[in-house]
Amino acid sequence: MTEDVAELAGGLADRLGWRTDECPAGRAMEVVGTRSAILILREAFFGTTRFDDFAERVDITAAAASTRLRELVEAGLLERSPYQEPGQRVRHEYRLTAMGRDLSPVVFGLYKWGSKYLYPDGQPPVEMSHTGCGDQLRIRVTCTAGHPVPLGEVTISPTPKRRRRQRAPAAAPTERAAAD
Amino acid sequence: MTEDVAELAGGLADRLGWRTDECPAGRAMEVVGTRSAILILREAFFGTTRFDDFAERVDITAAAASTRLRELVEAGLLERSPYQEPGQRVRHEYRLTAMGRDLSPVVFGLYKWGSKYLYPDGQPPVEMSHTGCGDQLRIRVTCTAGHPVPLGEVTISPTPKRRRRQRAPAAAPTERAAAD
Repeated sequence: MTEDVAELAGGLADRLGWRTDECPAGRAMEVVGTRSAILILREAFFGTTRFDDFAERVDITAAAASTRLRELVEAGLLERSPYQEPGQRVRHEYRLTAMGRDLSPVVFGLYKWGSKYLYPDGQPPVEMSHTGCGDQLRIRVTCTAGHPVPLGEVTISPTPKRRRRQRAPAAAPTERAAAD
Repeated sequence: MTEDVAELAGGLADRLGWRTDECPAGRAMEVVGTRSAILILREAFFGTTRFDDFAERVDITAAAASTRLRELVEAGLLERSPYQEPGQRVRHEYRLTAMGRDLSPVVFGLYKWGSKYLYPDGQPPVEMSHTGCGDQLRIRVTCTAGHPVPLGEVTISPTPKRRRRQRAPAAAPTERAAAD
């Protein structure tokens, strides 16, 4: 065991004070943690709005598409609104909300990671690039001040409210991610 | 239907040429698309290496932790290696590979998104910051040249190999994500 991990292991006892059902990443997975939800969002990012197109392009049954789209609307990532073409009945389209758009770094991150590691021949079917300059996309972890933040420089700590609940503000546990 | 979406809708016919089981994001979800896989990786990022700690902190059964850890080792995100403490039997610990570490923007992205949208009182239990300066983390989509890339400036296009397979290099479909 290296020294930095030994140091972190001492901190694990503090982290046992959190309930894992409170973890924001865990909650996020409860909302969007299915392959079909991620692929529906991918479609929405690239302009798909109609029920039949979602079902066909994600290659799921109409029943599955209906369930998934309803869940994403209820969760607030998509908005359902009526439209009507001349001579047709009223239909509904699905458009991204800000909440849905804000998940794009995650979906693109899965995309980049899958492209890098999950094609044995090194050739994923498509690539994503910046329209303006043609360079490939990157998904970066930075701080709001703009510094790049490697895994070893992430500190996790209770929010003020959480610290109050624990009634131990002076001993608030603060931890750093393991260095590479 | 707005003009930009009408334009993209014309491009959907081209995209029907891809098989969705080839989508890198879809493949990624097949490998890490469970809540427990994401939470095990979260633990690994913060220094957890031992079986009992993973099971306890992710709050899953030993059988579930065993299955999930084995899957993550087989997929190449974790490495399992023996260790032995004095007077104890040989045990195994689980350490991140480069492939596992490279998923951190996705896991932190889920974390940030969940923190922003899934706590009705606006108070997630913990926050993540840059150890160096104390500012909050951000997950950003940029290109390799460093430009910020908003959703409307992402272009998706077949890779060279894929274009050869399609035998239609002159008509290679290229699409842009829908503008906000």
